[in-house]
Amino acid sequence: MIIGKVISKVVSTRKHESLQGHKFLVIQPCYGKSDEYFVAADNIGAGEGELVLVTLGDAAQHALTRQAPIDAIVVGIIDQEPNIGKN
Amino acid sequence: MIIGKVISKVVSTRKHESLQGHKFLVIQPCYGKSDEYFVAADNIGAGEGELVLVTLGDAAQHALTRQAPIDAIVVGIIDQEPNIGKN
Amino acid sequence: MIIGKVISKVVSTRKHESLQGHKFLVIQPCYGKSDEYFVAADNIGAGEGELVLVTLGDAAQHALTRQAPIDAIVVGIIDQEPNIGKN
Amino acid sequence: MIIGKVISKVVSTRKHESLQGHKFLVIQPCYGKSDEYFVAADNIGAGEGELVLVTLGDAAQHALTRQAPIDAIVVGIIDQEPNIGKN
Amino acid sequence: MIIGKVISKVVSTRKHESLQGHKFLVIQPCYGKSDEYFVAADNIGAGEGELVLVTLGDAAQHALTRQAPIDAIVVGIIDQEPNIGKN
Repeated sequence: MIIGKVISKVVSTRKHESLQGHKFLVIQPCYGKSDEYFVAADNIGAGEGELVLVTLGDAAQHALTRQAPIDAIVVGIIDQEPNIGKN
Repeated sequence: MIIGKVISKVVSTRKHESLQGHKFLVIQPCYGKSDEYFVAADNIGAGEGELVLVTLGDAAQHALTRQAPIDAIVVGIIDQEPNIGKN
Repeated sequence: MIIGKVISKVVSTRKHESLQGHKFLVIQPCYGKSDEYFVAADNIGAGEGELVLVTLGDAAQHALTRQAPIDAIVVGIIDQEPNIGKN
Repeated sequence: MIIGKVISKVVSTRKHESLQGHKFLVIQPCYGKSDEYFVAADNIGAGEGELVLVTLGDAAQHALTRQAPIDAIVVGIIDQEPNIGKN
Repeated sequence: MIIGKVISKVVSTRKHESLQGHKFLVIQPCYGKSDEYFVAADNIGAGEGELVLVTLGDAAQHALTRQAPIDAIVVGIIDQEPNIGKN
Protein backbone atom coordinates (compact mmCIF):
# COMPACT_ATOMS: atom_id res chain seq x y z
CA MET A 1 0.00 0.00 0.00
CA ILE A 2 1.12 3.56 -0.31
CA ILE A 3 0.39 6.68 1.68
CA GLY A 4 -1.04 9.56 -0.32
CA LYS A 5 -2.79 12.85 0.11
CA VAL A 6 -6.32 13.45 -1.20
CA ILE A 7 -6.14 16.32 -3.70
CA SER A 8 -9.55 16.57 -5.35
CA LYS A 9 -12.53 14.68 -6.69
CA VAL A 10 -12.70 13.33 -10.22
CA VAL A 11 -15.90 13.89 -12.17
CA SER A 12 -16.64 11.52 -15.01
CA THR A 13 -20.18 11.49 -16.36
CA ARG A 14 -19.53 8.95 -19.11
CA LYS A 15 -18.01 5.92 -17.47
CA HIS A 16 -18.20 2.13 -17.34
CA GLU A 17 -21.51 1.10 -15.79
CA SER A 18 -19.81 -0.87 -13.01
CA LEU A 19 -18.20 2.36 -11.79
CA GLN A 20 -21.54 4.08 -11.16
CA GLY A 21 -21.94 4.96 -7.51
CA HIS A 22 -18.24 4.93 -6.75
CA LYS A 23 -16.47 8.11 -5.69
CA PHE A 24 -13.06 8.76 -7.28
CA LEU A 25 -10.27 10.88 -5.85
CA VAL A 26 -7.03 12.26 -7.20
CA ILE A 27 -4.28 11.09 -4.86
CA GLN A 28 -0.75 12.49 -4.58
CA PRO A 29 1.85 9.96 -3.39
CA CYS A 30 3.55 11.24 -0.21
CA TYR A 31 6.88 9.55 -0.84
CA GLY A 32 9.01 9.33 -3.96
CA LYS A 33 7.34 10.29 -7.21
CA SER A 34 5.14 13.03 -5.80
CA ASP A 35 4.18 14.27 -9.27
CA GLU A 36 2.61 10.95 -10.25
CA TYR A 37 -0.93 11.81 -9.24
CA PHE A 38 -3.31 8.92 -9.71
CA VAL A 39 -6.96 8.12 -9.14
CA ALA A 40 -8.36 5.85 -6.43
CA ALA A 41 -11.88 4.80 -5.56
CA ASP A 42 -13.00 5.74 -2.08
CA ASN A 43 -15.78 4.09 -0.09
CA ILE A 44 -14.53 5.29 3.30
CA GLY A 45 -15.26 8.99 2.94
CA ALA A 46 -11.81 10.54 2.82
CA GLY A 47 -11.73 14.33 2.59
CA GLU A 48 -9.45 16.63 0.64
CA GLY A 49 -6.10 17.10 2.36
CA GLU A 50 -6.36 13.90 4.39
CA LEU A 51 -3.58 11.31 4.33
CA VAL A 52 -4.88 7.95 3.20
CA LEU A 53 -3.69 4.38 2.80
CA VAL A 54 -4.24 3.21 -0.78
CA THR A 55 -4.20 -0.39 -2.00
CA LEU A 56 -3.01 -0.83 -5.58
CA GLY A 57 -3.55 -3.51 -8.18
CA ASP A 58 -5.70 -6.59 -8.07
CA ALA A 59 -5.83 -6.61 -4.28
CA ALA A 60 -8.14 -3.57 -4.51
CA GLN A 61 -10.91 -5.97 -5.53
CA HIS A 62 -11.02 -7.31 -1.97
CA ALA A 63 -12.26 -3.92 -0.75
CA LEU A 64 -15.20 -3.98 -3.18
CA THR A 65 -18.54 -5.67 -2.65
CA ARG A 66 -18.79 -6.32 -6.39
CA GLN A 67 -15.93 -6.73 -8.90
CA ALA A 68 -15.20 -3.63 -10.96
CA PRO A 69 -12.39 -2.25 -13.13
CA ILE A 70 -10.81 -0.48 -10.17
CA ASP A 71 -7.05 -0.78 -9.61
CA ALA A 72 -6.62 1.55 -6.63
CA ILE A 73 -8.81 2.10 -3.58
CA VAL A 74 -8.60 4.03 -0.33
CA VAL A 75 -8.57 1.47 2.49
CA GLY A 76 -7.74 3.68 5.46
CA ILE A 77 -7.32 7.19 6.82
CA ILE A 78 -3.90 7.76 8.38
CA ASP A 79 -4.17 9.16 11.92
CA GLN A 80 -0.80 10.88 11.80
CA GLU A 81 1.98 11.11 9.23
CA PRO A 82 4.54 8.42 10.05
CA ASN A 83 7.91 9.58 11.30
CA ILE A 84 10.31 8.54 8.59
CA GLY A 85 13.20 10.47 10.07
CA LYS A 86 13.32 12.93 7.20
CA ASN A 87 10.56 15.39 7.97
CA MET B 1 -6.43 4.40 -12.26
CA ILE B 2 -4.58 7.12 -14.04
CA ILE B 3 -5.70 10.13 -16.03
CA GLY B 4 -4.37 10.31 -19.56
CA LYS B 5 -4.93 12.09 -22.84
CA VAL B 6 -5.97 10.21 -25.98
CA ILE B 7 -3.26 10.77 -28.60
CA SER B 8 -4.08 8.52 -31.55
CA LYS B 9 -5.43 5.17 -32.65
CA VAL B 10 -3.27 2.09 -32.96
CA VAL B 11 -3.65 -0.04 -36.06
CA SER B 12 -2.61 -3.66 -35.84
CA THR B 13 -3.79 -5.98 -38.58
CA ARG B 14 -2.00 -9.07 -37.28
CA LYS B 15 -3.08 -9.53 -33.70
CA HIS B 16 -4.27 -12.13 -31.21
CA GLU B 17 -7.73 -13.33 -32.21
CA SER B 18 -9.26 -12.31 -28.86
CA LEU B 19 -8.33 -8.69 -29.62
CA GLN B 20 -10.41 -8.55 -32.81
CA GLY B 21 -13.15 -5.96 -32.51
CA HIS B 22 -11.43 -3.96 -29.82
CA LYS B 23 -10.29 -0.40 -30.46
CA PHE B 24 -6.84 0.54 -29.15
CA LEU B 25 -5.62 4.03 -28.32
CA VAL B 26 -2.25 5.55 -27.53
CA ILE B 27 -2.60 7.30 -24.17
CA GLN B 28 -0.27 9.91 -22.71
CA PRO B 29 -0.20 10.00 -18.89
CA CYS B 30 -1.17 13.47 -17.64
CA TYR B 31 0.92 13.36 -14.49
CA GLY B 32 4.50 12.28 -13.92
CA LYS B 33 6.11 10.29 -16.69
CA SER B 34 4.41 12.07 -19.56
CA ASP B 35 6.72 10.45 -22.12
CA GLU B 36 5.62 6.94 -21.21
CA TYR B 37 2.90 6.63 -23.83
CA PHE B 38 1.04 3.34 -23.57
CA VAL B 39 -1.85 1.59 -25.27
CA ALA B 40 -5.30 1.04 -23.81
CA ALA B 41 -8.41 -0.65 -25.15
CA ASP B 42 -11.45 1.58 -25.43
CA ASN B 43 -15.06 0.45 -25.53
CA ILE B 44 -16.48 3.81 -24.45
CA GLY B 45 -15.73 5.81 -27.56
CA ALA B 46 -13.10 8.28 -26.39
CA GLY B 47 -11.90 10.77 -28.98
CA GLU B 48 -8.46 12.16 -29.64
CA GLY B 49 -7.52 14.92 -27.21
CA GLU B 50 -10.03 13.82 -24.57
CA LEU B 51 -8.94 13.17 -20.98
CA VAL B 52 -9.77 9.66 -19.90
CA LEU B 53 -9.66 7.48 -16.82
CA VAL B 54 -7.64 4.33 -17.50
CA THR B 55 -7.64 1.17 -15.41
CA LEU B 56 -4.36 -0.75 -15.45
CA GLY B 57 -3.47 -4.37 -14.79
CA ASP B 58 -5.66 -7.33 -14.09
CA ALA B 59 -8.57 -5.15 -12.98
CA ALA B 60 -9.05 -4.18 -16.62
CA GLN B 61 -10.62 -7.61 -17.16
CA HIS B 62 -13.68 -6.46 -15.21
CA ALA B 63 -14.48 -3.94 -17.95
CA LEU B 64 -14.51 -6.67 -20.61
CA THR B 65 -17.39 -8.92 -21.51
CA ARG B 66 -14.95 -11.69 -22.41
CA GLN B 67 -11.43 -12.24 -21.04
CA ALA B 68 -8.65 -11.02 -23.30
CA PRO B 69 -4.94 -10.18 -23.04
CA ILE B 70 -5.69 -6.53 -22.28
CA ASP B 71 -3.86 -4.83 -19.41
CA ALA B 72 -5.22 -1.28 -19.78
CA ILE B 73 -8.70 -0.03 -20.64
CA VAL B 74 -10.46 3.31 -20.80
CA VAL B 75 -13.20 3.24 -18.16
CA GLY B 76 -14.34 6.87 -18.19
CA ILE B 77 -14.16 10.26 -19.86
CA ILE B 78 -13.06 13.02 -17.49
CA ASP B 79 -15.47 15.96 -17.51
CA GLN B 80 -12.86 18.48 -16.50
CA GLU B 81 -9.18 18.31 -15.63
CA PRO B 82 -8.90 18.04 -11.84
CA ASN B 83 -7.46 21.01 -10.00
CA ILE B 84 -4.24 19.71 -8.54
CA GLY B 85 -3.05 23.13 -7.49
CA LYS B 86 -0.22 23.16 -9.97
CA ASN B 87 -1.85 24.17 -13.21
CA MET C 1 10.23 -9.69 -3.51
CA ILE C 2 12.23 -6.75 -2.33
CA ILE C 3 14.42 -6.15 0.67
CA GLY C 4 13.44 -3.20 2.81
CA LYS C 5 14.04 -1.69 6.20
CA VAL C 6 11.24 -1.29 8.74
CA ILE C 7 10.90 2.42 9.51
CA SER C 8 7.82 2.84 11.68
CA LYS C 9 4.29 1.67 12.36
CA VAL C 10 1.27 3.10 10.57
CA VAL C 11 -1.75 3.98 12.67
CA SER C 12 -5.10 4.11 10.93
CA THR C 13 -8.19 4.09 13.11
CA ARG C 14 -10.70 4.40 10.25
CA LYS C 15 -9.95 1.59 7.86
CA HIS C 16 -11.59 -1.15 5.80
CA GLU C 17 -13.04 -3.77 8.14
CA SER C 18 -10.99 -6.58 6.58
CA LEU C 19 -7.83 -4.77 7.68
CA GLN C 20 -8.74 -4.88 11.38
CA GLY C 21 -6.20 -6.89 13.33
CA HIS C 22 -3.40 -6.45 10.81
CA LYS C 23 -0.28 -4.52 11.70
CA PHE C 24 1.05 -2.12 9.07
CA LEU C 25 4.62 -0.91 8.72
CA VAL C 26 6.32 1.80 6.68
CA ILE C 27 9.07 0.11 4.69
CA GLN C 28 12.02 1.78 2.98
CA PRO C 29 13.36 -0.09 -0.07
CA CYS C 30 17.05 -0.93 0.42
CA TYR C 31 17.98 -0.78 -3.24
CA GLY C 32 17.14 1.73 -5.94
CA LYS C 33 14.34 4.14 -5.14
CA SER C 34 15.10 4.49 -1.46
CA ASP C 35 12.73 7.47 -1.10
CA GLU C 36 9.70 5.47 -2.19
CA TYR C 37 8.54 4.45 1.25
CA PHE C 38 5.53 2.17 1.16
CA VAL C 39 3.32 0.29 3.57
CA ALA C 40 3.29 -3.46 4.11
CA ALA C 41 1.24 -5.69 6.38
CA ASP C 42 3.26 -7.72 8.87
CA ASN C 43 2.15 -10.91 10.59
CA ILE C 44 5.68 -12.06 11.41
CA GLY C 45 6.54 -9.47 14.03
CA ALA C 46 9.26 -7.43 12.37
CA GLY C 47 10.76 -4.67 14.49
CA GLU C 48 11.87 -1.17 13.53
CA GLY C 49 15.26 -1.15 11.87
CA GLU C 50 15.10 -4.80 10.80
CA LEU C 51 15.67 -5.81 7.20
CA VAL C 52 12.71 -7.68 5.81
CA LEU C 53 11.67 -9.55 2.70
CA VAL C 54 8.46 -8.06 1.27
CA THR C 55 6.15 -9.68 -1.27
CA LEU C 56 4.33 -7.25 -3.54
CA GLY C 57 1.15 -7.46 -5.55
CA ASP C 58 -1.42 -10.20 -5.75
CA ALA C 59 1.01 -12.83 -4.46
CA ALA C 60 0.71 -11.19 -1.03
CA GLN C 61 -2.70 -12.85 -0.70
CA HIS C 62 -0.97 -16.21 -0.30
CA ALA C 63 0.50 -15.03 3.01
CA LEU C 64 -2.94 -14.19 4.38
CA THR C 65 -5.37 -16.58 6.03
CA ARG C 66 -8.28 -14.54 4.67
CA GLN C 67 -8.35 -12.38 1.53
CA ALA C 68 -7.95 -8.65 2.17
CA PRO C 69 -7.08 -5.49 0.21
CA ILE C 70 -3.38 -5.90 1.02
CA ASP C 71 -0.82 -5.50 -1.79
CA ALA C 72 2.41 -5.84 0.22
CA ILE C 73 3.30 -8.11 3.12
CA VAL C 74 6.40 -8.93 5.13
CA VAL C 75 7.22 -12.59 4.49
CA GLY C 76 10.63 -12.89 6.12
CA ILE C 77 13.27 -11.29 8.31
CA ILE C 78 16.66 -11.08 6.59
CA ASP C 79 19.44 -12.60 8.74
CA GLN C 80 22.16 -10.46 7.23
CA GLU C 81 22.28 -7.82 4.50
CA PRO C 82 23.26 -9.58 1.25
CA ASN C 83 26.68 -8.78 -0.14
CA ILE C 84 25.93 -7.01 -3.41
CA GLY C 85 29.50 -5.93 -3.91
CA LYS C 86 28.70 -2.28 -3.48
CA ASN C 87 28.54 -1.81 0.28
CA MET D 1 -0.17 -2.61 -23.37
CA ILE D 2 3.00 -0.99 -24.57
CA ILE D 3 4.55 -0.58 -27.97
CA GLY D 4 8.05 -1.99 -28.33
CA LYS D 5 10.59 -2.93 -30.93
CA VAL D 6 11.79 -6.51 -31.33
CA ILE D 7 15.56 -6.53 -30.74
CA SER D 8 16.67 -10.17 -30.69
CA LYS D 9 15.79 -13.68 -29.64
CA VAL D 10 16.55 -15.07 -26.21
CA VAL D 11 18.07 -18.52 -25.99
CA SER D 12 17.61 -20.43 -22.77
CA THR D 13 18.29 -24.15 -22.84
CA ARG D 14 17.65 -24.75 -19.14
CA LYS D 15 14.21 -23.38 -18.43
CA HIS D 16 10.96 -24.21 -16.65
CA GLU D 17 9.24 -27.09 -18.44
CA SER D 18 6.08 -25.05 -19.09
CA LEU D 19 8.15 -22.64 -21.18
CA GLN D 20 9.26 -25.30 -23.65
CA GLY D 21 8.01 -24.53 -27.14
CA HIS D 22 7.60 -20.82 -26.51
CA LYS D 23 9.71 -18.28 -28.38
CA PHE D 24 11.11 -15.40 -26.33
CA LEU D 25 12.14 -11.99 -27.63
CA VAL D 26 14.04 -9.06 -26.18
CA ILE D 27 11.79 -6.02 -26.55
CA GLN D 28 12.81 -2.37 -26.33
CA PRO D 29 10.05 -0.02 -25.14
CA CYS D 30 9.41 2.67 -27.75
CA TYR D 31 8.34 5.36 -25.31
CA GLY D 32 9.83 6.47 -22.02
CA LYS D 33 12.37 4.15 -20.47
CA SER D 34 13.91 2.95 -23.70
CA ASP D 35 16.83 1.31 -21.90
CA GLU D 36 14.58 -1.04 -19.94
CA TYR D 37 14.76 -3.95 -22.33
CA PHE D 38 12.57 -6.84 -21.26
CA VAL D 39 11.59 -10.27 -22.52
CA ALA D 40 8.22 -11.24 -23.97
CA ALA D 41 6.87 -14.52 -25.30
CA ASP D 42 5.77 -14.44 -28.92
CA ASN D 43 3.31 -16.81 -30.57
CA ILE D 44 2.50 -14.46 -33.46
CA GLY D 45 5.81 -14.61 -35.30
CA ALA D 46 7.19 -11.11 -34.86
CA GLY D 47 10.51 -10.43 -36.58
CA GLU D 48 13.48 -8.40 -35.45
CA GLY D 49 12.97 -4.68 -35.95
CA GLU D 50 9.16 -4.92 -36.03
CA LEU D 51 7.02 -2.79 -33.74
CA VAL D 52 4.80 -4.91 -31.56
CA LEU D 53 2.01 -4.53 -29.04
CA VAL D 54 2.95 -6.24 -25.77
CA THR D 55 0.58 -7.17 -22.96
CA LEU D 56 2.13 -7.12 -19.49
CA GLY D 57 1.27 -8.83 -16.24
CA ASP D 58 -1.37 -11.37 -15.45
CA ALA D 59 -3.43 -10.44 -18.52
CA ALA D 60 -0.77 -12.14 -20.63
CA GLN D 61 -2.23 -15.49 -19.52
CA HIS D 62 -5.28 -14.82 -21.70
CA ALA D 63 -3.08 -15.07 -24.80
CA LEU D 64 -1.84 -18.52 -23.81
CA THR D 65 -3.55 -21.82 -24.46
CA ARG D 66 -2.05 -23.22 -21.25
CA GLN D 67 -1.05 -21.29 -18.12
CA ALA D 68 2.67 -20.64 -17.81
CA PRO D 69 5.00 -18.33 -15.84
CA ILE D 70 4.90 -15.71 -18.58
CA ASP D 71 4.34 -12.05 -17.63
CA ALA D 72 4.70 -10.41 -21.07
CA ILE D 73 3.51 -11.54 -24.47
CA VAL D 74 3.39 -10.09 -27.97
CA VAL D 75 -0.28 -9.73 -28.91
CA GLY D 76 -0.03 -7.76 -32.14
CA ILE D 77 2.21 -6.35 -34.85
CA ILE D 78 1.84 -2.59 -35.27
CA ASP D 79 1.12 -1.61 -38.87
CA GLN D 80 2.63 1.82 -38.56
CA GLU D 81 4.23 3.78 -35.73
CA PRO D 82 1.51 5.95 -34.16
CA ASN D 83 1.81 9.69 -34.66
CA ILE D 84 2.39 11.03 -31.17
CA GLY D 85 3.25 14.50 -32.35
CA LYS D 86 6.84 14.25 -31.25
CA ASN D 87 8.56 12.31 -33.97
CA MET E 1 10.14 -11.31 -17.96
CA ILE E 2 13.40 -9.55 -17.33
CA ILE E 3 16.99 -10.64 -17.65
CA GLY E 4 19.06 -10.31 -14.51
CA LYS E 5 22.32 -11.44 -12.99
CA VAL E 6 22.43 -13.62 -9.88
CA ILE E 7 24.31 -11.68 -7.19
CA SER E 8 24.01 -13.66 -3.97
CA LYS E 9 21.78 -15.84 -1.83
CA VAL E 10 19.35 -14.43 0.70
CA VAL E 11 19.24 -16.03 4.12
CA SER E 12 16.07 -15.63 6.12
CA THR E 13 15.58 -17.92 9.09
CA ARG E 14 12.29 -16.41 10.25
CA LYS E 15 9.97 -16.52 7.25
CA HIS E 16 6.43 -17.42 6.23
CA GLU E 17 5.98 -21.19 6.49
CA SER E 18 5.02 -21.51 2.81
CA LEU E 19 8.48 -20.21 1.88
CA GLN E 20 10.31 -23.03 3.65
CA GLY E 21 12.34 -25.10 1.20
CA HIS E 22 12.56 -22.35 -1.41
CA LYS E 23 15.92 -20.83 -2.32
CA PHE E 24 16.00 -17.05 -2.70
CA LEU E 25 18.48 -15.05 -4.75
CA VAL E 26 19.33 -11.37 -5.05
CA ILE E 27 19.00 -10.46 -8.72
CA GLN E 28 20.41 -7.39 -10.45
CA PRO E 29 18.41 -6.24 -13.52
CA CYS E 30 20.68 -6.21 -16.59
CA TYR E 31 18.88 -3.37 -18.36
CA GLY E 32 17.63 -0.04 -17.09
CA LYS E 33 17.47 0.37 -13.33
CA SER E 34 20.52 -1.72 -12.52
CA ASP E 35 20.56 -0.53 -8.91
CA GLU E 36 17.11 -1.93 -8.18
CA TYR E 37 18.24 -5.28 -6.84
CA PHE E 38 15.36 -7.55 -5.99
CA VAL E 39 14.79 -11.06 -4.70
CA ALA E 40 13.53 -14.02 -6.72
CA ALA E 41 12.83 -17.62 -5.80
CA ASP E 42 14.86 -20.17 -7.72
CA ASN E 43 13.96 -23.81 -8.24
CA ILE E 44 16.21 -24.26 -11.28
CA GLY E 45 19.58 -24.05 -9.57
CA ALA E 46 21.02 -20.80 -10.91
CA GLY E 47 24.50 -19.96 -9.73
CA GLU E 48 26.04 -16.63 -8.78
CA GLY E 49 27.06 -14.60 -11.81
CA GLU E 50 24.70 -16.42 -14.19
CA LEU E 51 22.24 -14.52 -16.33
CA VAL E 52 18.68 -15.63 -15.67
CA LEU E 53 15.19 -15.05 -16.98
CA VAL E 54 12.91 -13.90 -14.17
CA THR E 55 9.11 -13.88 -14.22
CA LEU E 56 7.51 -11.13 -12.15
CA GLY E 57 4.12 -10.73 -10.53
CA ASP E 58 1.24 -13.14 -10.31
CA ALA E 59 2.49 -15.20 -13.27
CA ALA E 60 5.26 -16.48 -10.99
CA GLN E 61 2.66 -18.73 -9.34
CA HIS E 62 2.57 -20.86 -12.49
CA ALA E 63 6.17 -21.93 -11.84
CA LEU E 64 5.32 -23.18 -8.35
CA THR E 65 3.90 -26.54 -7.45
CA ARG E 66 2.07 -24.98 -4.51
CA GLN E 67 0.86 -21.38 -4.17
CA ALA E 68 3.10 -19.16 -2.06
CA PRO E 69 3.68 -15.43 -1.46
CA ILE E 70 6.33 -15.31 -4.18
CA ASP E 71 6.22 -12.48 -6.74
CA ALA E 72 9.41 -13.23 -8.70
CA ILE E 73 10.92 -16.53 -9.79
CA VAL E 74 13.81 -17.66 -11.96
CA VAL E 75 12.34 -19.53 -14.92
CA GLY E 76 15.40 -19.97 -17.12
CA ILE E 77 19.15 -19.66 -17.44
CA ILE E 78 20.22 -17.48 -20.38
CA ASP E 79 22.70 -19.25 -22.66
CA GLN E 80 24.28 -16.08 -23.91
CA GLU E 81 23.67 -12.38 -23.29
CA PRO E 82 21.39 -11.10 -26.07
CA ASN E 83 22.92 -8.72 -28.56
CA ILE E 84 21.05 -5.48 -27.98
CA GLY E 85 23.38 -3.45 -30.13
CA LYS E 86 24.71 -1.45 -27.25
CA ASN E 87 27.31 -3.68 -25.63
